[in-house]
Amino acid sequence: MTKTKITVIGGGSWGTSLANILAENGHLTTIYARDKSVVDSINQKNINHKYFPETKLHPDLTAVNDFELAAAEAEVIVISVPTHAAEKLAQQLKKYTAEDTLLVSTAKGIDEDSFKLNSEIFKDAGFKNVVVLSGPTHAEEVIKKLPTAIVSAAKNKDNAEKVQDLFMSPYFRVYTNPDLIGVELGGAVKNVIALASGICDGLEFGDNTRAALITRALMEMGRFVDYHGGKTMSLAGLSGMGDLVVTCTSMHSRNRRFGIELGKGKSIEEAKKKVKQVVEGVKTTRAIYRWLEKEALELEMPITYQVYNVLFNDKDPYQAVDELMLRSKKHEMEAVVDKSLWNI
Amino acid sequence: MTKTKITVIGGGSWGTSLANILAENGHLTTIYARDKSVVDSINQKNINHKYFPETKLHPDLTAVNDFELAAAEAEVIVISVPTHAAEKLAQQLKKYTAEDTLLVSTAKGIDEDSFKLNSEIFKDAGFKNVVVLSGPTHAEEVIKKLPTAIVSAAKNKDNAEKVQDLFMSPYFRVYTNPDLIGVELGGAVKNVIALASGICDGLEFGDNTRAALITRALMEMGRFVDYHGGKTMSLAGLSGMGDLVVTCTSMHSRNRRFGIELGKGKSIEEAKKKVKQVVEGVKTTRAIYRWLEKEALELEMPITYQVYNVLFNDKDPYQAVDELMLRSKKHEMEAVVDKSLWNI
Repeated sequence: MTKTKITVIGGGSWGTSLANILAENGHLTTIYARDKSVVDSINQKNINHKYFPETKLHPDLTAVNDFELAAAEAEVIVISVPTHAAEKLAQQLKKYTAEDTLLVSTAKGIDEDSFKLNSEIFKDAGFKNVVVLSGPTHAEEVIKKLPTAIVSAAKNKDNAEKVQDLFMSPYFRVYTNPDLIGVELGGAVKNVIALASGICDGLEFGDNTRAALITRALMEMGRFVDYHGGKTMSLAGLSGMGDLVVTCTSMHSRNRRFGIELGKGKSIEEAKKKVKQVVEGVKTTRAIYRWLEKEALELEMPITYQVYNVLFNDKDPYQAVDELMLRSKKHEMEAVVDKSLWNI
Repeated sequence: MTKTKITVIGGGSWGTSLANILAENGHLTTIYARDKSVVDSINQKNINHKYFPETKLHPDLTAVNDFELAAAEAEVIVISVPTHAAEKLAQQLKKYTAEDTLLVSTAKGIDEDSFKLNSEIFKDAGFKNVVVLSGPTHAEEVIKKLPTAIVSAAKNKDNAEKVQDLFMSPYFRVYTNPDLIGVELGGAVKNVIALASGICDGLEFGDNTRAALITRALMEMGRFVDYHGGKTMSLAGLSGMGDLVVTCTSMHSRNRRFGIELGKGKSIEEAKKKVKQVVEGVKTTRAIYRWLEKEALELEMPITYQVYNVLFNDKDPYQAVDELMLRSKKHEMEAVVDKSLWNI
């Protein structure tokens, strides 16, 4: 395998896990981190003392604090910063990086101001080769080498396969998918549903309730993805239902833990104090709600509406669930099924 | 609402839960149970002492021990017996029940000898109106009135909607679907995957592994459903991914608990002793494997093959997972995606 010179931007848990795989796979891998102590701990002790203090990283993995150096020399740049930081990063990258550099976008979210997905932010800044890497992948488990599968999505097949080759390893299985929009929207919208799932758990509902929620959420996500020109079928994949399942069932999920606090009757402020880190789903819920109000009032997204009202209008979560259960009777696949299937 | 005279055949946990909903909805509901003590406890104390000794059932719910009486008088018959008992039941029912009586089939499995689904067994016995009721619905939670959603599937729209109307309640939301085959196969095959999910948990793999397994399993189920003329889209619904999620994540699932024992290195006999009750997935795995060997060697079902080998050929579960992870590189939606989506 040819060695590729790769920079991972972001020294958080996900950036570190991805960089570690790339180094294991023999690529010349550097993490750019703003936090000097993270850079030092990687270079001097082969650990990321902040996120994985107990895990030895690959000895060839290095870190830098110099953005220009990190950006200018890479053949491939993996981006692992939160969505709200993407626009600024895209503008910085443009100064040092050729437009045809392969960028791998790994954040899951929708920018609240522009309503853009991460890949769109980088494309709109002029980058021509953007691949999205998304799926059910808790960094805490990837760093332990637990079997994990993920999707490399891009319209350009060569790019998708290039990223597949870079990351593929015995415990990290990479699939390709041409439906970039469907894959990326799945990863973003699922955080809204993780909040809803947490709320149901906080209300002490059961496994049936969660399964119903996840399934109906997938239909709702399907309508959203379809509206934006993505393929609903991608939601049946790793970046859709796979990520939805892991986020709605795992205690690693901050969005779910946040929802549990709301379900227990805590306020949004109290829940924030409890969970501490950034909860991407709160921003995504607001972004989608505002977009619906402005652009697509007719789009049926009952779960997202209820989550918004619980989050921002003090709606009683019990009342929200009741309203979801008592909606008019439905055919399961109303939007997608071939009507001619019925014998009438 | 008109009151309907309904018999539920089977006094187990699921039959009892369904009968209780029907009685609550005002229907004249009787449970037929072979166990006289169950009949007595329902009639005398409004409980099913064997399955839900602590739950008061609806006071109007009755039970009988006389099969002829139960079968002959009902306008609707709900069937809640294991798959291996369905053929015999169908023959008995024919003696006492008109061919156009509405039957609601609720068991999830494939007959090992005939490779028939439950609905096929009843249709082949001459019954004209068979509806399948399937979804992510642990009886233990339905009896507690936790919010639950389920699918009523039949080619005949009136029949599907009739069953929807009978069961719909504030905590039990019923959707209709015309794809009977897809819905019924989803419920059956998911038990194979629940075994696999349990095996992964027994091996102490993580949430990522489970999410990957569930997602790839859905693709595998899709190929199987497609081969049998069902709609893969139904697998994105309650009876597919919904049921798959609940079965692969809940400790209520016997199939999953059985798999956990196998993953821990126990033999199939030891696992049977531990779980005690019928584990439908073991039979279903063997049924599908035999069918594949005989009818469709070309159909790609790698997870089912590995589960079969762990169950019946003493294959090391670690080895099975390794082989799944190291298969050749794949495109995520190889069988379903529009090839023209790629920019090449």
